[in-house]
Amino acid sequence: MQAVCLLSGGMDSATLAYLAKDSGYEIVALHFTYGQRTEAKERQCAQEIARRLDAVEFVEISLEHFTKIGASSLTDQSIAVEEYEEGREGMPNTYVPFRNGNLLAIATSLAEARGAEAIFIGVQVGDYSGYPDCRPEFIEAFQRAVDIGTSPEAHIRLQTPFVHMTKAEILRKGFELGVPYEHTWSCYQRNDIACGVCDSCHYRRSAFTELGLTDPIEYAE
Amino acid sequence: MQAVCLLSGGMDSATLAYLAKDSGYEIVALHFTYGQRTEAKERQCAQEIARRLDAVEFVEISLEHFTKIGASSLTDQSIAVEEYEEGREGMPNTYVPFRNGNLLAIATSLAEARGAEAIFIGVQVGDYSGYPDCRPEFIEAFQRAVDIGTSPEAHIRLQTPFVHMTKAEILRKGFELGVPYEHTWSCYQRNDIACGVCDSCHYRRSAFTELGLTDPIEYAE
Repeated sequence: MQAVCLLSGGMDSATLAYLAKDSGYEIVALHFTYGQRTEAKERQCAQEIARRLDAVEFVEISLEHFTKIGASSLTDQSIAVEEYEEGREGMPNTYVPFRNGNLLAIATSLAEARGAEAIFIGVQVGDYSGYPDCRPEFIEAFQRAVDIGTSPEAHIRLQTPFVHMTKAEILRKGFELGVPYEHTWSCYQRNDIACGVCDSCHYRRSAFTELGLTDPIEYAE
Repeated sequence: MQAVCLLSGGMDSATLAYLAKDSGYEIVALHFTYGQRTEAKERQCAQEIARRLDAVEFVEISLEHFTKIGASSLTDQSIAVEEYEEGREGMPNTYVPFRNGNLLAIATSLAEARGAEAIFIGVQVGDYSGYPDCRPEFIEAFQRAVDIGTSPEAHIRLQTPFVHMTKAEILRKGFELGVPYEHTWSCYQRNDIACGVCDSCHYRRSAFTELGLTDPIEYAE
């Protein structure tokens, strides 16, 4: 029983992969690069997590075509990554339109080609996203597209165990599962040590603080 | 008013682009390459069609990652392209799992980034596909995923004017619109002159024959 597991190298996806393995799945790790600033570091973390879980495959797929579509600070180097700001409204500028739609489409192709029965994706509705394609209604709609748009022999379930969890709850789960968080990367901005001020760093640190745990990685500020 | 128009270089997508333009849309041409045997020829045709329609943009996106997913003769050079066979059942081996799901996901990202109001895709349920992601139910399901998974400001309609048409009906429409079929390419197998025997050549020739028209391209046999 195999599951395609989206493994970015971040703390959520690492926890997700440990959870999928713990649920009895063999892991087909699917790692995306899309010209983001922190690509090298994320890949290295994802590979280490996959290795520790004896993944049957590590598939790396470039989404550099997102740079042709533009409109996000994650892929467009001319736009600065926004720092966390309390109470900011509207879509963060790290938004890539319909990104999860793209990730899930590729994961579905891979799952059908390998005969995998599940796709694990670490979307969360609650904490820092504001992305419309992170909501459970989106996952349900995409599930239907998968059911209809794949061959009759394919039976692929989208699994989003974290969708209603907070980052702190995910972290607690990960500690139970023994996830090595020193091999995960969250920062949107830097490759060497985490910046500590981008949205993603902010939420990671808050989760560790909330649980009274020490984050094993180093921060610039 | 802009429309993202999937422009492969084939006769259906060329007709589709002419139809979108005729319906009042400015064309954002979206051309995919995915390591297929006939890539160069298809690109050249797509560019010529876009040029003639004064497309506002020609976005070329590589889906070469399909080669990492495998399982199709279109992208896996070790699998021979099947020739047309009367009454053959099951999925043709040119099947790339969930291909249209992937194409539509990228088109949706592009449409949202550009503020386009429509995506034109030349899927047809009837004639030669057998692909589950060519059916109108799939398009409806994907439309719902698009509605939910894009930002509240985006209003993107998937337009599939050919879904219930035969290739001959599309061709008739194209002749009315003045589509230059000498600048279209259908063959799955050859880049120089069309093979004449693959599925795609077979159906193209049948359409011309049905209408009593002469196909302006040359065939090997």
